[in-house]
Amino acid sequence: MGMEMEKISINAERLMKDLSDLRHIGAAGTGVVRPAFTDADMKARSWLKERFEDANLETTIDGIGNVFGRSKKKGPAMLIGSHSDTQPEGGWLDGALGVIYGLEIARALNENHITSSLAIDVVSWQDEESNFLSCLGSRSWCGTLNDKLEQQATSREGETLQDALRRVGLYDTPRLTMEKNRYLGYLEAHIEQGRYLEDAEEKIGIVTAIVGIRGLIITFEGEQNHAGTTTMKQRKDAATAMFEVAYRINQEFPNIANETTVWTIGNVVIEPGASSIVPGRAELTLQFRDQDENILNALGLAVGKIVEDIELKGNISIHVREGREIIRPSKMNSDFQQHLEKSARLIAPNSWRYMSSAAGHDPMVIHEKLPCAMLFIPSIDGISHSFSEDSHESDIILGCEVLATATASILAQTER
Amino acid sequence: MGMEMEKISINAERLMKDLSDLRHIGAAGTGVVRPAFTDADMKARSWLKERFEDANLETTIDGIGNVFGRSKKKGPAMLIGSHSDTQPEGGWLDGALGVIYGLEIARALNENHITSSLAIDVVSWQDEESNFLSCLGSRSWCGTLNDKLEQQATSREGETLQDALRRVGLYDTPRLTMEKNRYLGYLEAHIEQGRYLEDAEEKIGIVTAIVGIRGLIITFEGEQNHAGTTTMKQRKDAATAMFEVAYRINQEFPNIANETTVWTIGNVVIEPGASSIVPGRAELTLQFRDQDENILNALGLAVGKIVEDIELKGNISIHVREGREIIRPSKMNSDFQQHLEKSARLIAPNSWRYMSSAAGHDPMVIHEKLPCAMLFIPSIDGISHSFSEDSHESDIILGCEVLATATASILAQTER
Repeated sequence: MGMEMEKISINAERLMKDLSDLRHIGAAGTGVVRPAFTDADMKARSWLKERFEDANLETTIDGIGNVFGRSKKKGPAMLIGSHSDTQPEGGWLDGALGVIYGLEIARALNENHITSSLAIDVVSWQDEESNFLSCLGSRSWCGTLNDKLEQQATSREGETLQDALRRVGLYDTPRLTMEKNRYLGYLEAHIEQGRYLEDAEEKIGIVTAIVGIRGLIITFEGEQNHAGTTTMKQRKDAATAMFEVAYRINQEFPNIANETTVWTIGNVVIEPGASSIVPGRAELTLQFRDQDENILNALGLAVGKIVEDIELKGNISIHVREGREIIRPSKMNSDFQQHLEKSARLIAPNSWRYMSSAAGHDPMVIHEKLPCAMLFIPSIDGISHSFSEDSHESDIILGCEVLATATASILAQTER
Repeated sequence: MGMEMEKISINAERLMKDLSDLRHIGAAGTGVVRPAFTDADMKARSWLKERFEDANLETTIDGIGNVFGRSKKKGPAMLIGSHSDTQPEGGWLDGALGVIYGLEIARALNENHITSSLAIDVVSWQDEESNFLSCLGSRSWCGTLNDKLEQQATSREGETLQDALRRVGLYDTPRLTMEKNRYLGYLEAHIEQGRYLEDAEEKIGIVTAIVGIRGLIITFEGEQNHAGTTTMKQRKDAATAMFEVAYRINQEFPNIANETTVWTIGNVVIEPGASSIVPGRAELTLQFRDQDENILNALGLAVGKIVEDIELKGNISIHVREGREIIRPSKMNSDFQQHLEKSARLIAPNSWRYMSSAAGHDPMVIHEKLPCAMLFIPSIDGISHSFSEDSHESDIILGCEVLATATASILAQTER
């Protein structure tokens, strides 16, 4: 890191053309419809394979649908990429941006005599967006794809993953797994999908961690009764207890949370749900996210304390259970972050920040096996998972330069 | 009222036999299924007509299905009764008790030389339980049956009221309306449908008023958003505002309410209702009941103040609208109440109380035209609108004696 950093130029026109060409595969108005293993997705993967070959990479579509472009250069290598599958109604940059950044950085470093010896492998992971199973491709590559989950995986349309693999001709194709001792790490660029950068008029987000997510379902059991003839003292109103728990969560969480913690009570149910019947049962769905496991733990404990307080009143029995698979916070590699910071200071001075990712990405899976880092560029109005998702061209180009420069810096430091 | 009151005896065996016979029409286990205008209901009305005739009353089933038994004696008369139609899964005493009390009191007073000159008319109103339209029969008799409501009235099974009237052969039958200058008032006995009497080990409830009912629907409009990438400061979470309103209603209503006020938040809806989406819209259904219009007004104002407070925070727009037809509290006649008190002091000393009725009854309609009073007897476990509804035989007999004695007292006072 003591070395003077030099800005790496990229071919902006080529970058934008590739993004535009990819956008046309599965295009729907300003957006794209390219969920994993659809015809459009497989067409995009074939197109990417050709682009990787054009860039002089050894190219494979493996047995789970991942597209790899392996540098012919000796390692240590940096793997760069993202995913080319989309949401059912996806934007043109979610995933595509990071894949084409990888491709462009492989080409740009190869064309630059200072960096031409550096090995850049490029990847498009399969099904990050969970048509069948979230982060399917990166799980497979990391060797953490659970057999049972794979067998159960079914698309939104009701097709099993096994049938989809047969349909696209990949069922008997070998799956690639991480090549030992080749990689320094994995880098991924992505649109922010939020408004921190735009609101601050900044251009680059250096991700410190991908937030952890916890979900709790809290059920309240009381006694269903006539809303006219049952006195307030006689009542065991499940909804009243639920309202108090919900209110106290919203009152007490800010005392524990930090600036980026978020929590949501996204649904409640009251039974039987009639205006003239005292509710006998109620249920509340709570989700909370933070990059800091300690804060997630503290929020969980606070819920337990609130529930205990309300249950001690003696009328209502309350049960708390996990409402979803726990996702732990994924810390990004701090050395990589420092290279990204140095690059951002050089190329986008005073226009960058450290931030956490509130949305999930493949590095949640990969960081358990390899050092990872992520870079965000601004989303216009913070919109994503929507046809109207967009980013400014100048921001797209700037982000690629920052990532290219940081990549070269990391690899060069190791080569010395 | 200065006059010494004398206990009026009734024929307990005859009373219990009539109740038992009526219970067998439409019997279902320990309960009855006799909604208005079903075959069982019409069979019960024909059976009642015969019983009224046996009691030497001039008997009519009128064009809306009311069964009247008119005393041949000169007035002023007291009208006594209730309804013989039931809920879809009804108990054997809800309604039937008050009708058979009326019949037995007409017979008992006639057989007693002291009271034999007193005129008792008996009635079974049609459709108090709202198979087509709540209190249909009493509305018709009072001249307050709205033409439009009558035309729209449709049963739970989807039959129109007009078709039902044709089916049972009443379409062209004249409807009776209140005979002018005949009635001192209307008396109705009923099971309590609650547990005040049972919990206090009391036998007689003298109703001071039937509670008024108000319903409010409160809607909250915010902004739907991603639960991961939308910061807490950016959010316009409709559910958070709703929880605060619900919590504050439950916190603040006790400061305004009296001992018998009840309120219920029986349902809420959150949209779109997903764990990962910040709710954009929410709705809350509030109902409150009291016998005192001033308290209902104060509760309504308190809701307005709470909503105003939350709306002033600026994030969420809140709208309050009426969620149901307003039912105003129905005050029972105080002179009648005093006669009932005197009778209870004589026959059930230290086992009676004044109380309000939390459920609705025909006197809600009739009290606008005639002085009304109601008497309650205990419900076992407070259960009603259920096959397991029941009351102790000794309580049934005692209640009839108290009502008979009060009736004689009211009529005798006027005769003097």
